Amino acid sequence: MKREGNCIIGQSGGPTVAINASLSGVLQGIFENKLYNQVYGMVNGIEGLLQDKFLNLSEIFTSQEELDRLTQTPAMYLGSCRFKLPTCEHSEDVYEDLFNFFEKHNIRTFFYIGGNDSMDTVLKLSNYAKENGKDVNVIGIPKTVDNDLPMTDHTPGFGSAAKYVATSLLEIAHDTYIYNIPSVTIVEIMGRNAGWLTTASILARTEYSPAPDLIYLPEVAFDMDQFIEDVKAIKEKRKNVIIAVSEGIKDCEGNYISASSGAVDAFGHKQLCGAGKTLENILKAELGCKVRSVELNVLQRSASHIASRTDLDEAVAIGKAAAKLGSEGETAKMVCYKRVSDAPYQVEIFSYDIAAIANQEKTVPLSWINERGNDLNEEAITYLRPLIEGEVHLSFRNGVPHYCNIAHLHDRH
Amino acid sequence: MKREGNCIIGQSGGPTVAINASLSGVLQGIFENKLYNQVYGMVNGIEGLLQDKFLNLSEIFTSQEELDRLTQTPAMYLGSCRFKLPTCEHSEDVYEDLFNFFEKHNIRTFFYIGGNDSMDTVLKLSNYAKENGKDVNVIGIPKTVDNDLPMTDHTPGFGSAAKYVATSLLEIAHDTYIYNIPSVTIVEIMGRNAGWLTTASILARTEYSPAPDLIYLPEVAFDMDQFIEDVKAIKEKRKNVIIAVSEGIKDCEGNYISASSGAVDAFGHKQLCGAGKTLENILKAELGCKVRSVELNVLQRSASHIASRTDLDEAVAIGKAAAKLGSEGETAKMVCYKRVSDAPYQVEIFSYDIAAIANQEKTVPLSWINERGNDLNEEAITYLRPLIEGEVHLSFRNGVPHYCNIAHLHDRH
Repeated sequence: MKREGNCIIGQSGGPTVAINASLSGVLQGIFENKLYNQVYGMVNGIEGLLQDKFLNLSEIFTSQEELDRLTQTPAMYLGSCRFKLPTCEHSEDVYEDLFNFFEKHNIRTFFYIGGNDSMDTVLKLSNYAKENGKDVNVIGIPKTVDNDLPMTDHTPGFGSAAKYVATSLLEIAHDTYIYNIPSVTIVEIMGRNAGWLTTASILARTEYSPAPDLIYLPEVAFDMDQFIEDVKAIKEKRKNVIIAVSEGIKDCEGNYISASSGAVDAFGHKQLCGAGKTLENILKAELGCKVRSVELNVLQRSASHIASRTDLDEAVAIGKAAAKLGSEGETAKMVCYKRVSDAPYQVEIFSYDIAAIANQEKTVPLSWINERGNDLNEEAITYLRPLIEGEVHLSFRNGVPHYCNIAHLHDRH
Repeated sequence: MKREGNCIIGQSGGPTVAINASLSGVLQGIFENKLYNQVYGMVNGIEGLLQDKFLNLSEIFTSQEELDRLTQTPAMYLGSCRFKLPTCEHSEDVYEDLFNFFEKHNIRTFFYIGGNDSMDTVLKLSNYAKENGKDVNVIGIPKTVDNDLPMTDHTPGFGSAAKYVATSLLEIAHDTYIYNIPSVTIVEIMGRNAGWLTTASILARTEYSPAPDLIYLPEVAFDMDQFIEDVKAIKEKRKNVIIAVSEGIKDCEGNYISASSGAVDAFGHKQLCGAGKTLENILKAELGCKVRSVELNVLQRSASHIASRTDLDEAVAIGKAAAKLGSEGETAKMVCYKRVSDAPYQVEIFSYDIAAIANQEKTVPLSWINERGNDLNEEAITYLRPLIEGEVHLSFRNGVPHYCNIAHLHDRH
């Protein structure tokens, strides 16, 4: 099964808590089965590779302890890039540079861990290799907190972000209910076009806490008047209203609610107000009660301290499956999860043609959303809950998590 | 040692992760030593008590499992209030109402868990009892993420918030370093007058990550020109600059930096911009590179999922000590931590006259801050590090933390 020669792995796009777990899985799959001679890692994805920036991962990760630490380290050990690979027609030299590099370093397989844009890179490179008779196969490994890749039941990284969102919403509820005064709290959650991560807020509900009382996704056009009505209706029933909104909610003309405020600060700079802050200002004027907005910031994609065990375990497994697939010479494929059963929760890993995945976006099924567009049904819970199950026991050092050393990323190059 | 009769406990002020641990400690101390007949809990502090809102905690917390769950539940099981007890000269009827309640329910000891304002309540009630020959003693138990109470080495709740801040800063660093483009990230941390919680950001530094590169506290007047110079100087050396600022930083005239923007949104509402957002806008104009601000929101005071073991253990212990003190008939005292040694870290619990504590505020020692006012020295680390040591293993249910049921708080009353 061993593929003669070496391979290279890269990471690209936005960070998640599980993308290093997939990298760790690829490495574990290769080391355990001796699938390649050397495993290289591109630093800052394909953009870094074009500048000859790479590491020898076979020399760095020499113990299971280090591989386990990598599994639990947030963001990207190898660094990322936001680089749209140009088409071969426009920039053949870029492709020649890359494949010269592959030849020079005897690279047989190119693994790329990423989201939509990264899968476009996988497609283009695999096409180039086929069309030009290059013996380099290309495998994509999904990751994104946005969960918007098609074909796969879900994406590595989503479950941990979902666990962060649900846990945070519950903790915000505890923080909110303590005062005996009416209040509205808006929690803004990541997701520009797909509201998957906001759907996870429903998992915060318990027998004693209905939060979030209202949930708004980009999949449904946002109507400001109806929103204000919805909030007022809940306020009649409950002292504290807690609302989950996607950052990407849009009005019926497709304009972001976040952009519509057009605020300018004292220095004349345009204030880019998020959806949460915009709704906060509007509700303050409408309701005359305490209103606050909380932006679940970058921690929702980088808080490894509240990772989902299921997510990390699966991310390692999908990395291992990718390693096997690559070593078998498969190309132009992305590894995917297939859900075999909800209860007990069970997934299998398979692979699918990258051409059907790249540049596609999967949004939340409209059948999950109620008619009023402000809540979700049981189907959402059935899908979501298994993905956040299980906890990770990090190792700590000096009171903070002991993550992998990433000094190679933050020095000025 | 048993004090004949009953006692009542309340919580007041802003939430922390450890305030329920102190409540649990008081209950454990009482139950283990049978110190009182019944333990009541006021709902929404003294304000709720004046409306006759209370629970019988002896009937609710009947197992160690429930007491342990309470220890790990964030915010306030009993609810809070922001109520400044008027002076007896102005509102004697309020005092009469309270002491009538105490007499009616045979309350011998009044325990109050809170920060500065709550200790003012402890002082006033104990004075009234003394002056009017009432056999009710009053004991204060500190809590605040702000760590600004005098006499005690630190306050319950601070260590967990500090652990959240340090861990989050490290995770934000991992999230930041992945891109090979220059960027500045500003992290805004709670603290209006005292910068204690912002000092904890220094604990995020590891051998591979210098973040935060700059630290600004309210204790030092904030100079905008110097700030911009500081950021530019770090930017020369490092690709990514990460800055920790207290929400309460002020200029040399004492004006909050957060208030100075005076922005107005498209609806004509005044935008209350925080310090982080204000600095973000200024740096964007000055530097022309990627600048973002992250507000560590209410989770820094309510994220029990990353609580400090040291903090929770100590909070239980100080609660038990308060129970003992109360049962001995002591009054007008707050329980305090005394640090016996840094290495090994060791604290003792003692009590101190409330008159010397109420309405006082303890700020960060200026001797910890460098001359430039943008960093801290080793003394800060020596003080802070033990407070964030140790982790809590929460129990989870359906993928989210299994906290105490607080349905009694969030219903409309």
